[in-house]
Amino acid sequence: MLYLVGLGLSDETDITVRGLEVVKKASRVYLEAYTSILLVDQSVLEAYYGRSIVVADREMVESNSDEILRDAQTEDVAFLVVGDPFGATTHTDLVLRARELSIPIQTIPNASIMSAIGGCGLQLYNFGQTVSMVFFLDNWRPASFYDRIKENRAIGLHTLVLLDIKVKEQSLENMARGRRIYEPPRYMTVGQCAQQMLEVEEDKKEGIYGPDSLAIGAARVGGKTEKFVAGTLKQLCDADDLLGPPLHSLVLLGSRAHELERDYARDFAIDKDTWDKAWSEQYGKQ
Amino acid sequence: MLYLVGLGLSDETDITVRGLEVVKKASRVYLEAYTSILLVDQSVLEAYYGRSIVVADREMVESNSDEILRDAQTEDVAFLVVGDPFGATTHTDLVLRARELSIPIQTIPNASIMSAIGGCGLQLYNFGQTVSMVFFLDNWRPASFYDRIKENRAIGLHTLVLLDIKVKEQSLENMARGRRIYEPPRYMTVGQCAQQMLEVEEDKKEGIYGPDSLAIGAARVGGKTEKFVAGTLKQLCDADDLLGPPLHSLVLLGSRAHELERDYARDFAIDKDTWDKAWSEQYGKQ
Repeated sequence: MLYLVGLGLSDETDITVRGLEVVKKASRVYLEAYTSILLVDQSVLEAYYGRSIVVADREMVESNSDEILRDAQTEDVAFLVVGDPFGATTHTDLVLRARELSIPIQTIPNASIMSAIGGCGLQLYNFGQTVSMVFFLDNWRPASFYDRIKENRAIGLHTLVLLDIKVKEQSLENMARGRRIYEPPRYMTVGQCAQQMLEVEEDKKEGIYGPDSLAIGAARVGGKTEKFVAGTLKQLCDADDLLGPPLHSLVLLGSRAHELERDYARDFAIDKDTWDKAWSEQYGKQ
Repeated sequence: MLYLVGLGLSDETDITVRGLEVVKKASRVYLEAYTSILLVDQSVLEAYYGRSIVVADREMVESNSDEILRDAQTEDVAFLVVGDPFGATTHTDLVLRARELSIPIQTIPNASIMSAIGGCGLQLYNFGQTVSMVFFLDNWRPASFYDRIKENRAIGLHTLVLLDIKVKEQSLENMARGRRIYEPPRYMTVGQCAQQMLEVEEDKKEGIYGPDSLAIGAARVGGKTEKFVAGTLKQLCDADDLLGPPLHSLVLLGSRAHELERDYARDFAIDKDTWDKAWSEQYGKQ
């Protein structure tokens, strides 16, 4: 059996009881560690599970899945995924390959940022499609998120923006020389995301959102140190200190927002007067 | 402290380790039991937790929240919610009231249908807003879901449809006579949902979807007996036997669907030829 086990969002105790039972008895345990991270180290997980874990990077999952799936027709293999196995990313290829090999599959779901973000006070029913934001480079500024946000905003919906993480990156020089030396991991902050969003609006000038649009920055959602900061995109460009360490996410408000959402999220506002003013001008109209 | 504890989707072992620790040590434990249900009885939960639970119905949560929150400034109160505390429904009022009473709040997230539905093979990034479907009555056929689906379909997105459950309902006669006698719980099936969707399209005739539109029926998502059945809405009207017992949900496909989604979900098709034909005519165009 291939078990896809969600680990939840924060630390080693966020696994479900059922998931923990599977991890303890599986023949081999892999940890997918390139689309998200827990807030604790691998060693903490290993101590907690009482066993060793193989960290599966993107290359392993995408190019060497048969090693992960080896003998899973008769043995139990646990493939651990931060959040929910079908949360922000799916492992469709791995499951399709397991099916080809006649390996039975069972999923053990867990919390995902896509539902836990509801802790910011916005109703999940009022969210449109989720988008991703990557680190811009000088000559590479992918802005497909902008058209998606435009679609959501056109019908008054909120947008969850998931922020880039970079793990196991090589510098160009190390890559050219074939040196397996990796840069420290990087996690996009709400400030960087808000800044990139405003830059793209500045380029495109379609008026989909602007410096005065309301948004909520979220940090370490689902964890004991979860933190939300609400304000305008302009304010959120400088709110990283308030939010603290990674992981960060951002929600851009849609105009269909309800008064209860306003009241709930207002508690997180950097400046309640700015929040109230922006709200009364732009939101709750539908 | 008020703890909002997600229980996950299926049985007593779907609680997280952190959640279980909270339940075991809290002064009082409430179970919200009117927006969703687990697949196990309260007695199973009580035996597993080693303590008694107060079932909180809608009336208690909405009208008597101060009893739930009593002394939570100094004691720990656990409020258990099936799925994720911020999943399909929120408990905004309870949290706002707790804030008024200066009660600290902590959320322990868990799996939600809104991410676990990804197990059907459709990418969560391609979902628009989630809608709800209620049991129609002869003279009450609320169809606001139709306009929401229209918005999602206009931009090619999938729609998750959450299905009505009725617990602790009184017959009109018992209500009139003030008798606290309740009808057996009712859970909408995929077949009933698909039928009601087609009836509303028949009324409105906007061509938002039709009998040949593809959808996926889902049963007991996240549980050991999870089951997906894919087909046209017409086929799904008669697929309840294949799906088995509650809870059910339905996903209506959007045209932006990707080939990988087709391949993954095709495995669940009632009839693969019908699936392929409908797909090639209507999907994967964007």
